[in-house]
Amino acid sequence: MDNAINQSVSNVSFISVNDMIQLLKRVGIENFISELVEYLEQDYLNWASFDKSPRFAAHSPEGVIELMPIGGDEKFSFKYVNGHPKNTQSGLQTVTAFGVLSDVATGYPLLLSEMTILTALRTAATSVMMAKYLAPKNATTMAMIGCGAQSEFQITAFSKVLGIKTIRLYDINPQAIQKCTENMMNKGLTLITCDSAQEAVKGADIITTCTADKKNATILTNSMITDSVHINAIGGDCPGKTELEIQLLSRADVFIEYEPQTRIEGDIQQLPSDSPITEMYRVINGELPGRTSPQQLTIFDGVGFAIEDYSALRYVYDLVNKHGNCQQLGLLVNPDDPRNLFGLTA
Amino acid sequence: MDNAINQSVSNVSFISVNDMIQLLKRVGIENFISELVEYLEQDYLNWASFDKSPRFAAHSPEGVIELMPIGGDEKFSFKYVNGHPKNTQSGLQTVTAFGVLSDVATGYPLLLSEMTILTALRTAATSVMMAKYLAPKNATTMAMIGCGAQSEFQITAFSKVLGIKTIRLYDINPQAIQKCTENMMNKGLTLITCDSAQEAVKGADIITTCTADKKNATILTNSMITDSVHINAIGGDCPGKTELEIQLLSRADVFIEYEPQTRIEGDIQQLPSDSPITEMYRVINGELPGRTSPQQLTIFDGVGFAIEDYSALRYVYDLVNKHGNCQQLGLLVNPDDPRNLFGLTA
Repeated sequence: MDNAINQSVSNVSFISVNDMIQLLKRVGIENFISELVEYLEQDYLNWASFDKSPRFAAHSPEGVIELMPIGGDEKFSFKYVNGHPKNTQSGLQTVTAFGVLSDVATGYPLLLSEMTILTALRTAATSVMMAKYLAPKNATTMAMIGCGAQSEFQITAFSKVLGIKTIRLYDINPQAIQKCTENMMNKGLTLITCDSAQEAVKGADIITTCTADKKNATILTNSMITDSVHINAIGGDCPGKTELEIQLLSRADVFIEYEPQTRIEGDIQQLPSDSPITEMYRVINGELPGRTSPQQLTIFDGVGFAIEDYSALRYVYDLVNKHGNCQQLGLLVNPDDPRNLFGLTA
Repeated sequence: MDNAINQSVSNVSFISVNDMIQLLKRVGIENFISELVEYLEQDYLNWASFDKSPRFAAHSPEGVIELMPIGGDEKFSFKYVNGHPKNTQSGLQTVTAFGVLSDVATGYPLLLSEMTILTALRTAATSVMMAKYLAPKNATTMAMIGCGAQSEFQITAFSKVLGIKTIRLYDINPQAIQKCTENMMNKGLTLITCDSAQEAVKGADIITTCTADKKNATILTNSMITDSVHINAIGGDCPGKTELEIQLLSRADVFIEYEPQTRIEGDIQQLPSDSPITEMYRVINGELPGRTSPQQLTIFDGVGFAIEDYSALRYVYDLVNKHGNCQQLGLLVNPDDPRNLFGLTA
């Protein structure tokens, strides 16, 4: 009887939080990020083939629940992600996420994965993938402003993929700097604790801003920033949450992911809706240049786009098939006679 | 170490296909449907409080993948459902579904459930819930036109909730009638096999149409139908897929779920966009009448709306908490320090 029931079930691969942690240990977090960069570049090269749409958001007084769907030629994916700032007061996460990858030809889901950790990895992989096209050549020093949950992933990505050796750390909370320093010790990096953002950016080739305050903040002012720098601005990622002074944005060449989303969510929400920007897929496919001179000041105004979750799920699905050690969920019905669904329940 | 990792994980309840089958055995399918009717009525009474939106659909040459989100005051839900007609050629289901119920206050998912079986149950529960307000009093006989995967669930619902005793069955495929008859035998019902839809509707108080052909079909013509009947029309549920003749729709009083969706997907897609209809929440909350006389000809033009999936997931979640015997998935990260996500991966 159990056997009869099991034949009527079709499985979906499942990556729990523990599975993701084990997968990272097996692959190595540096290799994971650098391989994910390749998947991201492949998907950005296929930009035109994706069925893109703005995220769906259900707002409530306490927060927001979002669904981020995207369809490619062969796969479909969506991510579920919430944002509830008061959660930390009751010991819960502000943001949790999970996602599903499906087969377009059959509509069957293939993979269900945790995406809280995976989103941190894909955000860092996306930043460094963009920086490959935008950062000054032979960059060695990065300022890391904001030492929260994303900071170590960013440092790992820039160290592995771009060879960054020196990190200049700043956070308004000294404990956050301490946590980040402890996590990044003994990895061949020079870690310098700074007393201010102004000090952190001194001599940096790349400046990553990844702060958490949900307000229109001014983490970097125009006068703080010299030419010949790439700014990887990650923390200004929803309406009312920005990090860069308007004059700085106006002075630099600004690169973004997907205009309909970034105009609303990115730092450029502060600028007129026709301010000059370049969508990065046009740089990656060679249609437009990235960095054109050593003196250029570039900004990647990153907000996170569904195509990056798609790439991350596609990569994890390939890893799962290669290593073959994930759980299987009996999520789908598969009766011998599709018209006899009721027979299963009898 | 394992213990340390486990403390960093928060669980989500999971109902697999086998779990759903076991839950149905424990509760009884008739009780399941009649209790679900109560949940549906509660949620339809709270209609105004829901954040409703049209479904999201990703179309491909082979089919469609849909996300159906809806937010209530306390819970949020979405269903993933695909439709791929050619799947049966390779032994796969045309339609599979799963869904998630979340807590609005925290954004945390609470339940992940199979929804292929659950959708069949909620569709039948919705039909009979609507029929409570629309069917002739003391109805005893139902015509069941289309004996596919949904038919036995409809018969079970109308038998349990409205006391229907006689079923007049018709399908273009005699094997489908045979399958339905075998599944419904020995349940105190009189099952009559008919040679045509015209024969099946003779003397029926309620006519359920639930056919599968994806075209503008005419399962019921105006001249086949007498007054004093309720038509539960379920099979006309997407653009280009209808079951009822226009003259029949024009003659009857038509009741629907959610106008923005039913105008596109229901049988009324054949009528002008201002044809008279009544949204059922206004009947259920007492604002407008349902059936007003024994002679009235009523049609429920059902297409399936996200609120019904919400009710179904809410009911299953309550069952799970009552019986406490479902699986737990380690889907969510829960570190001691929310800013130290990287520490989990080290």
